[in-house]
Amino acid sequence: MKRSAYFISDGTGITAETLGQSLLAQFENITFSKFTRPYIDSVEKARAMVQQINTAAEVDGERPIIFDTIVDREIRDVLAQCNGFMIDIFASFLAPLEQELSSRSSYSVGKAHSIGQNSNYAERISAVNFALDNDDGARTQHYDKADLILVGVSRCGKTPTCLYMALQYGIRAANYPLTEDDMERLQLPAALTPYKKKLFGLSIDPDRLTAIRNERKPNSRYASFAQCEFEVREVEGLFRRENIPHINSTHFSVEEISAKILVEQGVERRLK
Amino acid sequence: MKRSAYFISDGTGITAETLGQSLLAQFENITFSKFTRPYIDSVEKARAMVQQINTAAEVDGERPIIFDTIVDREIRDVLAQCNGFMIDIFASFLAPLEQELSSRSSYSVGKAHSIGQNSNYAERISAVNFALDNDDGARTQHYDKADLILVGVSRCGKTPTCLYMALQYGIRAANYPLTEDDMERLQLPAALTPYKKKLFGLSIDPDRLTAIRNERKPNSRYASFAQCEFEVREVEGLFRRENIPHINSTHFSVEEISAKILVEQGVERRLK
Repeated sequence: MKRSAYFISDGTGITAETLGQSLLAQFENITFSKFTRPYIDSVEKARAMVQQINTAAEVDGERPIIFDTIVDREIRDVLAQCNGFMIDIFASFLAPLEQELSSRSSYSVGKAHSIGQNSNYAERISAVNFALDNDDGARTQHYDKADLILVGVSRCGKTPTCLYMALQYGIRAANYPLTEDDMERLQLPAALTPYKKKLFGLSIDPDRLTAIRNERKPNSRYASFAQCEFEVREVEGLFRRENIPHINSTHFSVEEISAKILVEQGVERRLK
Repeated sequence: MKRSAYFISDGTGITAETLGQSLLAQFENITFSKFTRPYIDSVEKARAMVQQINTAAEVDGERPIIFDTIVDREIRDVLAQCNGFMIDIFASFLAPLEQELSSRSSYSVGKAHSIGQNSNYAERISAVNFALDNDDGARTQHYDKADLILVGVSRCGKTPTCLYMALQYGIRAANYPLTEDDMERLQLPAALTPYKKKLFGLSIDPDRLTAIRNERKPNSRYASFAQCEFEVREVEGLFRRENIPHINSTHFSVEEISAKILVEQGVERRLK
């Protein structure tokens, strides 16, 4: 069975998309075709949207599921005429919140993901630059300004995790690769020892690491299972000896790895 | 007036946080202290959470607002005993969805942001690597594999936008800086001409550009207002002459810039 799902907003569509994805993920036996439709901010665009939804309803033989965060009443009323099953996110929660907060909602469009609302927007972009400048051990002289320093073998997921934490939460995360040299010394690189409390280790299953490295450098010693297994074993030993908190990234997304690191290190997200 | 708000989940907390942030953004006259609490996945953790919320209620003199996406009924019931105003996201929408889809929700924890659910997870990480490898014109030989190529002056926001689209949507976005050399020739760099349909221009207000460049290279010619104004004028002229779609990034977040680019270029997000 196949159903269409639309995430519709007068802003970026991120809220409708995030909530919609979460809810639909609970129905594993249904295949959804998913479409995000941002900036539906006029009656004309809403009318065109209704046509698109109605066409999908005909093709699918089932009405699409619509998640919307449209603020404007008139535009929402037009959209509501479509042949879809409406999950109206703002309408469901804004009225009870207004009552609890004894305050009127501003009903302003596109607030959540705008720069204006984000007092920490500049901080997020600056954290992205920090992650890029301090990626892969490139520089170590700014570790005093880091919130976190991820350590682990090459290609275990350090960089995407740092970028995610920077973009999403404005967290300044550097990363430092533990290479064969460090392993043979069996101790923490000197650049890291002053910042031991900021360190968090990423590990990975050797066979997964082998697969990832083979995509970068096929059939190299670097990508061999023996080398990957050796590095992972040495690094995990180091984490244990030095009491560095660590997780195995193999089965986790950057979202999950980030959430786990922040909980474990007690770092608060920088939310506006 | 100050209120505490908690985004509580048995998974990463991203859904609760995203929806909560969007709703709270509608109440501009209230200052919220916001806390994300992921992995509240046991009765014990829920009890500790209740205590934390009740303490905040006492300190604030107002009950906190709670956005939760906890799936397990027993854990949710414990949390519901707190002295907070509950916005129970899944409870509100799962039952109507079950009816519409004639299907039972799996009530499984942490689905939305896990690797398993994300059939496109590998694609997202590979898109991040693509963005990094093809950042700042470093390489141009893989543009055939790009979904998009962002062009603009140095420091107008190309890299964070590419990284956001990659991480969030698995979109392969390269970026190419238009430098003074290109401007004096007043034509598109040869590396870009075969891929004109993939190009999207970012512009920026000269005074904002001056401020950003001064943070990187204080008091340089590169960061002077005269230079910034010249480059922006030349580049905007090029966009117009070459009919390259473009937006001014000054007042938009990476989320907004990305959403606008995808709409304009007709690129669909890679949603699982």
